Amino acid sequence: MISKKMENMVANSSAIRAMFEEGNRLAGIYGAENVYDFSLGNPNVPAPETVKDAIRELLNEEDPVVLHGYTNSNAGYEDVRTAVAESLNAKFGTDFSAKNITMTVGAAGGLNVILKSLLNPGDEVIAFAPYFGEYRSYTNNYDGVLVEISPDTETFQPKLDEFEAKITAKTKAVIVNTPNNPTGVVYSEETIKKMAAIMEAKQKEFGTDIYLISDEPYRELAYDGVEVPYLTKYYANTVVGYSYSKSLSLPGERIGYLVIPNEAADSEKLIGAANVATRILGFVNAPTLQQKVVKKCLNEKTDISYYNRNRETLYHGLKELGFECIKPEGAFYLFVKSPVADEKEFCAAAKKYNILIVPGTSFACPGYVRLAYCVSYETIVNSLPKFAELAKEYK
Amino acid sequence: MISKKMENMVANSSAIRAMFEEGNRLAGIYGAENVYDFSLGNPNVPAPETVKDAIRELLNEEDPVVLHGYTNSNAGYEDVRTAVAESLNAKFGTDFSAKNITMTVGAAGGLNVILKSLLNPGDEVIAFAPYFGEYRSYTNNYDGVLVEISPDTETFQPKLDEFEAKITAKTKAVIVNTPNNPTGVVYSEETIKKMAAIMEAKQKEFGTDIYLISDEPYRELAYDGVEVPYLTKYYANTVVGYSYSKSLSLPGERIGYLVIPNEAADSEKLIGAANVATRILGFVNAPTLQQKVVKKCLNEKTDISYYNRNRETLYHGLKELGFECIKPEGAFYLFVKSPVADEKEFCAAAKKYNILIVPGTSFACPGYVRLAYCVSYETIVNSLPKFAELAKEYK
Repeated sequence: MISKKMENMVANSSAIRAMFEEGNRLAGIYGAENVYDFSLGNPNVPAPETVKDAIRELLNEEDPVVLHGYTNSNAGYEDVRTAVAESLNAKFGTDFSAKNITMTVGAAGGLNVILKSLLNPGDEVIAFAPYFGEYRSYTNNYDGVLVEISPDTETFQPKLDEFEAKITAKTKAVIVNTPNNPTGVVYSEETIKKMAAIMEAKQKEFGTDIYLISDEPYRELAYDGVEVPYLTKYYANTVVGYSYSKSLSLPGERIGYLVIPNEAADSEKLIGAANVATRILGFVNAPTLQQKVVKKCLNEKTDISYYNRNRETLYHGLKELGFECIKPEGAFYLFVKSPVADEKEFCAAAKKYNILIVPGTSFACPGYVRLAYCVSYETIVNSLPKFAELAKEYK
Repeated sequence: MISKKMENMVANSSAIRAMFEEGNRLAGIYGAENVYDFSLGNPNVPAPETVKDAIRELLNEEDPVVLHGYTNSNAGYEDVRTAVAESLNAKFGTDFSAKNITMTVGAAGGLNVILKSLLNPGDEVIAFAPYFGEYRSYTNNYDGVLVEISPDTETFQPKLDEFEAKITAKTKAVIVNTPNNPTGVVYSEETIKKMAAIMEAKQKEFGTDIYLISDEPYRELAYDGVEVPYLTKYYANTVVGYSYSKSLSLPGERIGYLVIPNEAADSEKLIGAANVATRILGFVNAPTLQQKVVKKCLNEKTDISYYNRNRETLYHGLKELGFECIKPEGAFYLFVKSPVADEKEFCAAAKKYNILIVPGTSFACPGYVRLAYCVSYETIVNSLPKFAELAKEYK
């Protein structure tokens, strides 16, 4: 009796989540220290101490009626939105103000708000494989059609020729995610410039507006000083979806924002629509205490050296065992080539060693598996002998 | 370039919100103390001190990785769901366990989750006027059709004959909201039993499942010892949507839950669908800190005597001025008859005295206006001379 759309969704439900729940089951049997759960992007680095301080300060300073009340605008507290805008301006030389910022229930909430605001049934949304599988669900929520660009498994940069060919008059949005989940790849400035030029030309060709949606939960997680270009500076019709889930280790608190710049087509209308969509999708407003927390922590960063040590150890460890993998420049994922064509078979084999990894099919890229290395260093170190045993099966 | 559905939504955007934003504008000009803003159900009673204590304790006691992390299930922390279930069982003699509870981003999030889980395009959802206007938007989100039962302006109890006549083979859900927004009326046990009997008979007649969705943000706000029946006990296919927005004065924090009982048709599937809907709509999980807070505050209640004083003062004050109004038994709203047929005209007249009230059209009940009396007592007292001036216009 559940809806037909949901029947399909439940049937194809997230393998990531299933794996994560399996991890908890195994931890119950074998003890958490004997399970190597690389399934979910749930940060193991605690929120910085300033988050705790910020919450304590807010409890002392703020009137609880304001602190826990509805915000005047569904877009969030004006002071928080101003602070976010100014912080972005200082970092990226942009020119945003409060009106350009809509506080959201994480990036997932923000993506739903913007897709609800934009999509008519049958509109196309382009994503570059491998991509976060939820993009398909979010697009489907508003009867859009997800159009996939096949992966370049050499570099995991977007295939721009195929991209250009697949843009149609129905293309309403293009989602990019850099640093990327699941590959850790960062799109270079050159790539972004080429993408922007293609989209500009296609907008002219079709007389349409094509929005670039930049999903940026991993922006702050970039290693070795690599630059992550700020996309509004390269393409006018850009909307940014940000989350503090990873940068402040607050994934459960559901706090992020959308940036809709004045330069975007129909900016005023789109901002108004995002406001209404926030309300009618049932978010109403981003959680208020956390809005005030992030305002106090705008200059705070998660301890990236922690993830970097994990990255180096796991990457080199797996390479030494003969696994093939591109070295990630950002985020906290390794995207490893499965030693057998059917990577689900490989995931099943890994589970025998209590290693939990996610099949690439979940990211529209079969033949690969994703490892989330936002785990403890001990998990990484202790998993390597298990990976060695696993590797032996494929020698 | 925004979606056609959103064009309509923005055009018909919430009059309540517009009024609330107008209130803030007027407060900026005349000073907050000279504006009588009865527009929004934003509680003026601060969250109980135990909420503050709970947050402080959680910061000291809990591992931040757990406290702010993704929950194992999208339905929320198992311990929180167990505690909510046990608390309901103790209060209402029900038999729920953790699996029956899905923690949600407020009641608005919960209603979206359950409607997404249930509705196929064209399915009908029945609501009794006057009703919270957002039900129409939530239904429309999933291409359902809202079917309205006209108001009984004598008692504001549901018109059961019209209800019976309007149930069809396409009726998928019926939303009730008791204590009611905007009338403050509580549906009696007798009414509920009659409704249940009608729905049972119609399910048999059509061979369908018709879900009763009980939207209960005002459950704890009942005056004079009036009983608010717990609906799962009267009708098997009941789903409850609850929110702590009013009971703990946490509307901005977006925390509530759904109850899907084992007795509901296709319960297992519906619980699974709600889980997936929570994820793909972008909620992912209810905010984690607040989940833990409500667990610690399950026996806490807002100070209802505060609202009761407001209720008595405003109700009697308006009656003495000649306004017509049913005395509310719950919630924090008065639904007052407009002295002129076009209640928008009356709202405009009220605004001249800095009195902000919401037209009944927003609740599918023109000719009436809603006053939210979750304001300070001073606002009530000081507004009465202004209402007296307003009343004179209609003598």
